[in-house]
Amino acid sequence: MTGTVYLVGSGPGDPELLTVKARRLLEAADVVLHDRLPGPELLAEIPERKRVDVGKRVGGERTPQAAINGALVAHAREGKTVVRLKGGDPMVFGRGGEEAAHLAEHGVPFEVVPGVTSAVAAPGVAGIPVTHRGTASCVSVVTGHEDPEKPESDVDWAALAETGGTIVVLMGVRRLPEYTAALCEAGLDGDTPVAVVERATWPAQQVATGTLATVADEAERVGVSPPAVTVVGDVAAQREQVLAFLEGEP
Amino acid sequence: MTGTVYLVGSGPGDPELLTVKARRLLEAADVVLHDRLPGPELLAEIPERKRVDVGKRVGGERTPQAAINGALVAHAREGKTVVRLKGGDPMVFGRGGEEAAHLAEHGVPFEVVPGVTSAVAAPGVAGIPVTHRGTASCVSVVTGHEDPEKPESDVDWAALAETGGTIVVLMGVRRLPEYTAALCEAGLDGDTPVAVVERATWPAQQVATGTLATVADEAERVGVSPPAVTVVGDVAAQREQVLAFLEGEP
Repeated sequence: MTGTVYLVGSGPGDPELLTVKARRLLEAADVVLHDRLPGPELLAEIPERKRVDVGKRVGGERTPQAAINGALVAHAREGKTVVRLKGGDPMVFGRGGEEAAHLAEHGVPFEVVPGVTSAVAAPGVAGIPVTHRGTASCVSVVTGHEDPEKPESDVDWAALAETGGTIVVLMGVRRLPEYTAALCEAGLDGDTPVAVVERATWPAQQVATGTLATVADEAERVGVSPPAVTVVGDVAAQREQVLAFLEGEP
Repeated sequence: MTGTVYLVGSGPGDPELLTVKARRLLEAADVVLHDRLPGPELLAEIPERKRVDVGKRVGGERTPQAAINGALVAHAREGKTVVRLKGGDPMVFGRGGEEAAHLAEHGVPFEVVPGVTSAVAAPGVAGIPVTHRGTASCVSVVTGHEDPEKPESDVDWAALAETGGTIVVLMGVRRLPEYTAALCEAGLDGDTPVAVVERATWPAQQVATGTLATVADEAERVGVSPPAVTVVGDVAAQREQVLAFLEGEP
């Protein structure tokens, strides 16, 4: 009997932002393949004997995607209940689609278990709604972390600027100077509010705020480091309005 | 002592897709203000005595936003622990930002508790990744449900088409013919794959698939009704590739 592979989103990192289903599946799993994005608190709750770290480390060794795909199939064929745990949601820049296709191709049953995406949660816990009546009727999500195998960016910053909506950039805080400049070149005002939320919902959460013109310097001054989510648009200014009554800000 | 208001996302409707934190807060709450979007299964788990339905019904009576804002403040000032439960995530077309601003203005402490957004979960459980390497490096989310107080749409379909990414339309399945036509006029190919996911993760989930040219007819044939999420882009074709091994499809 082939086991089932569950492609599970962990949410942004607070163990309480796991879904009830994700928690149940983590308890039931024979093996949990994960990277570092679910965060240290959440990973510490999974018994060591179940855990296999297949993380891709920036600047270090990384497990090739083909090896992860192969491991998922191999564990399932041993009849195991397999959880593939992803930071945020498995289908938002999580390669969940690739893994699903590989499993289907190899006849392995799987289920997608959505999670709380950091694209929405990181701004949210910082008091920033990604959509807001009268301010943003659209939100676009891109990644600032380029595929190292790709020669150049395929993010169309000009088209994103043109939507008039909120732009959320996942990862890639190191490239903040490049894409804030690209958005200004694309026609957005240098005064457009920006917030960078580092380690959202982790105990070490911190937020840098500014504008397209200033936020890269401000993030450097505050010492923002990955993982972080950048939110660009007038909604980012909402944070200042609510900050005094925003509970749960670590 | 003023109580705290928790702006809580319920996720798409499956009670197991509540976060652990949302479940804890629903148990601890003195009062839960909700609409119909969390879905019948999930609402049935909340004791009747705690529940206040402030839902806005299409074509029927609706509770004005000002009345909801006022009720949140009033309950908190009675010292209650208040949960404002929203379908999906409170900050994605959920007016969470407006309620947060109102609470801050009235000195009421609040916390944002992110949820699983249907914008990602509905495609996901139907086997569709909203981003996919080589296919979609961007996802934009808009609403097809227009504010009845607004005379015309402020969604820039042409700019969305220009991003080259996935477009997710929340609600507004009744306006499917209009926005599929608008996207074709904006330059997207009539053959662009589209899927409409109705009542994602509810027992009555159903999916209609087609292209920009055909999906409105197909949705009518299948009998798709609200609430539904529409996903436009090449990623929508992924569903066919994985369908045979996609578990949990009701």
